[in-house]
Amino acid sequence: MFIKNAWYVAATAPECTEKPLARTLLNEKVVLFRLSDGTAVALEDRCCHRLAPLSLGDVEEGGIRCRYHGMKFDAQGDCVEIPGQDVIPPGMCVRRFPLVEQHGFLWIWLGDPELASRDEIVDVHWNNAPDWPTASGYIHYKANYQLIADNLLDFSHLTFVHRTTLGNSEFPNARPEITSFDRGIKLNRVIRNCQPSPLHAMAGKFTGPVDFWNRQIWWLPSVFENWAGSVSAGDDDAPHERPGGLHLRHFSLLTPETEQTTHYFWIQPCQFPHDDLGIIEKVGIGMSTAFAEDRWVIEAQQEVMNSAPEVKPKAVRSDAALGRVRAMIDRLIDQESRLVHESVQDA
Amino acid sequence: MFIKNAWYVAATAPECTEKPLARTLLNEKVVLFRLSDGTAVALEDRCCHRLAPLSLGDVEEGGIRCRYHGMKFDAQGDCVEIPGQDVIPPGMCVRRFPLVEQHGFLWIWLGDPELASRDEIVDVHWNNAPDWPTASGYIHYKANYQLIADNLLDFSHLTFVHRTTLGNSEFPNARPEITSFDRGIKLNRVIRNCQPSPLHAMAGKFTGPVDFWNRQIWWLPSVFENWAGSVSAGDDDAPHERPGGLHLRHFSLLTPETEQTTHYFWIQPCQFPHDDLGIIEKVGIGMSTAFAEDRWVIEAQQEVMNSAPEVKPKAVRSDAALGRVRAMIDRLIDQESRLVHESVQDA
Amino acid sequence: MFIKNAWYVAATAPECTEKPLARTLLNEKVVLFRLSDGTAVALEDRCCHRLAPLSLGDVEEGGIRCRYHGMKFDAQGDCVEIPGQDVIPPGMCVRRFPLVEQHGFLWIWLGDPELASRDEIVDVHWNNAPDWPTASGYIHYKANYQLIADNLLDFSHLTFVHRTTLGNSEFPNARPEITSFDRGIKLNRVIRNCQPSPLHAMAGKFTGPVDFWNRQIWWLPSVFENWAGSVSAGDDDAPHERPGGLHLRHFSLLTPETEQTTHYFWIQPCQFPHDDLGIIEKVGIGMSTAFAEDRWVIEAQQEVMNSAPEVKPKAVRSDAALGRVRAMIDRLIDQESRLVHESVQDA
Ligand code: FES
Ligand code: FES
Ligand code: FES
Repeated sequence: MFIKNAWYVAATAPECTEKPLARTLLNEKVVLFRLSDGTAVALEDRCCHRLAPLSLGDVEEGGIRCRYHGMKFDAQGDCVEIPGQDVIPPGMCVRRFPLVEQHGFLWIWLGDPELASRDEIVDVHWNNAPDWPTASGYIHYKANYQLIADNLLDFSHLTFVHRTTLGNSEFPNARPEITSFDRGIKLNRVIRNCQPSPLHAMAGKFTGPVDFWNRQIWWLPSVFENWAGSVSAGDDDAPHERPGGLHLRHFSLLTPETEQTTHYFWIQPCQFPHDDLGIIEKVGIGMSTAFAEDRWVIEAQQEVMNSAPEVKPKAVRSDAALGRVRAMIDRLIDQESRLVHESVQDA
Repeated sequence: MFIKNAWYVAATAPECTEKPLARTLLNEKVVLFRLSDGTAVALEDRCCHRLAPLSLGDVEEGGIRCRYHGMKFDAQGDCVEIPGQDVIPPGMCVRRFPLVEQHGFLWIWLGDPELASRDEIVDVHWNNAPDWPTASGYIHYKANYQLIADNLLDFSHLTFVHRTTLGNSEFPNARPEITSFDRGIKLNRVIRNCQPSPLHAMAGKFTGPVDFWNRQIWWLPSVFENWAGSVSAGDDDAPHERPGGLHLRHFSLLTPETEQTTHYFWIQPCQFPHDDLGIIEKVGIGMSTAFAEDRWVIEAQQEVMNSAPEVKPKAVRSDAALGRVRAMIDRLIDQESRLVHESVQDA
Repeated sequence: MFIKNAWYVAATAPECTEKPLARTLLNEKVVLFRLSDGTAVALEDRCCHRLAPLSLGDVEEGGIRCRYHGMKFDAQGDCVEIPGQDVIPPGMCVRRFPLVEQHGFLWIWLGDPELASRDEIVDVHWNNAPDWPTASGYIHYKANYQLIADNLLDFSHLTFVHRTTLGNSEFPNARPEITSFDRGIKLNRVIRNCQPSPLHAMAGKFTGPVDFWNRQIWWLPSVFENWAGSVSAGDDDAPHERPGGLHLRHFSLLTPETEQTTHYFWIQPCQFPHDDLGIIEKVGIGMSTAFAEDRWVIEAQQEVMNSAPEVKPKAVRSDAALGRVRAMIDRLIDQESRLVHESVQDA
């Protein structure tokens, strides 16, 4: 069960070209391609004729042609040509999904197109912005996206999973302040006068203790914004407002592929308290290492859960944030299914 | 659901030797082997003792010996020896399937043996006949045989799938004349004064336009005969009767392995309008290339269908032949299931 | 369905170290590890917090720490530390399984711990004992353990499966004497004045005919003891009591992994009628070859059975022993399920 009425990242902008790209998103087979004028298009990847994938076909002026018997579909998904046949019968079309290109990503809406408002797309304008050297990557995960969300929402794991990268022995004790808002939750956390994590020490070139902050937002259903940073330990002001700090504007953008697999996009725009901008490469390597550590644990967790689906987790205090997000997601899924139910009754 | 009361190709004749060959046919595990006198035998590949596959065993005089505890079965499937035991209890036997060797193939009957008449085996005597240089091959397909049948029954795909081999821009417009008969359907198609397909041009060494013909028969359930050819464009006579033509007596012989996989045997006996018989090798390479193109599309189509089994195709005009064959197959399956039902009631 | 109230080999003693070992046993995910004082411990391999496998964690003084959020469990499976939280809520624990280290193996009890009595562990003290050079090995089998048990309980297969190793043309005719006892069955078999099998000839350096014996015990549910040997053919005394014989004290120790896979441990302690003790290596190679032959047949048999679960084997006389053991196992499973049922009703 996924939340359908939401924007998800379908692909990075450069992934989408005139060569069709097949991708499964929320269990839907989708073909992504770019017309010669640059417009990115997302259609159902299943020709309505005999169900061949359109992604085997070729992009042509204004649409895509099925590789099997050559039917052509325009950017709205309507069939505009049937070889050997003059009349196109009504209903010859494939689904077209709202798709918005913004800040380096293609955002797709797989739910009711009437409800799609581009204002709701999460703002990730730091991605490759001037003054924000950006590391980024993609991970294909063999786990449900909620297990990854759990992980991102509970930083007590940093101490144990990420000993050599993001870890810091203070995390389990540094409870964040959690507040809900209409789009998700916010977490704030400050750890003063602590040893920087290996990654912050390297990226910020800190030699002594730091004041560390996280200002995180979980955007429902599955975008995680984490404005994290460190600044040399000092006065009582909010550390993220003090000059000379390291700023990491991280985003993890999760798109369910199936119930058991997830597309994980991430970006890490940075501002450094020094001029050595080339260090962004090391930041990218460090993040990739940390994410590989997470993946190792989370995919193993998914396997354990599959082997005994009836066993339920037992909550501890550090599960507060993830528990709240899971409850919000359940509520949204419930709302959507009632919505569908009502519209069926209306019809 | 398969039609059981029919002849299917189990193997090519040379595949069957004194070394047992295990093959799944219509979901049945079958062992094929040849006795020392040359007789080819097909038995259930499951020892009745403790269900080891007989195909691990050894062929001996008059039968096959199970590799596990050494029980021997004769060519009728009857147990004729139990090591360490003098009396053979009644019912110690495995199923034996009618098997006929003809024109280079072993034809098997997996239904009611009483109904097996070898007269119904499709005549493929051109296979390696004198004066008919023959290319041939085998493809293991990850798709239901009916998707392959659909493909063979609708040549409008040639233009799009087989651009560089069998394609010809006229195919979508050249509707065949379709007639039904008791064993299946016949399709005739003539395209006059057209560019030859790359394969015909090469095989026939045509330099100018040709008159092209297909005289096809779909033999139920799953043998496709395609007498295709080209002759230099000319008078109004039926092109297949004019001298100097290229004649391809193609057969595609499909045997379901499972609901999702198919054994695909094909032969391409040829007569050329020139003496360069060595060109048969290039014909074989061309056909293999074309079949690989089909397989690429059809296996992708099968995957799409598996991912959304409830979605139904939408017919267009060029589906006329495949629609007719699908209806015939449904009717035969229906008849068979009623037959089984009645015989159960009689008993 | 497995017999739970029984001891099974979980691992060889050297396999269990301070690095956690993940192993599935009777469908249970188990983590095995050794504390710094040498004690071997078996816990459920699923952290009660968010179900990560404990086997990814680290062994510490007196227990194991989960790699995900750092909860620590002691050797009884009780949580003794939750990072960032002082109070440990009741019920924070994982299952701990009785585990006994004896004669080179770790024996686990996956049923009701109240019923576990270490007196019932099969005595395999010959394993690596002084004067008993021992070959040993482990095989991962893709078959249900009962198919392997069937194989071990019917030596008529030796003639056909093990032609070049354990085979002897007399086996199918040499019916063993079978007696039941409270823990399983015993099989005795003597073949006088026969050609030794290739393995016995090699290991015992016999040049002429031998008197051969098997004194076997099937210990329910799944340990096979086979005291086999040969001595030069001679007088009427029991061959296993005559001097100058080759003695093989074989044990096959089967532990179901899943319904379709099995852990197969074996040991082959030997006494030779000569001083060339280095020959134990060749014995090990011979046994490995023979077991590979069995595995080839039995895994194929499992596949055939999976493809047609409704087909039942047909018994012959040499199935007497395996039939008896299968009946005993069915009875024990039935008893266990009634036990569980009653205890549920009591509660
Ligand atoms: S399947 Fe696309 S045109 Fe036929
Ligand atoms: S399984 Fe074939 S003889 Fe026993
Ligand atoms: S899953 Fe083990 S401590 Fe959280």
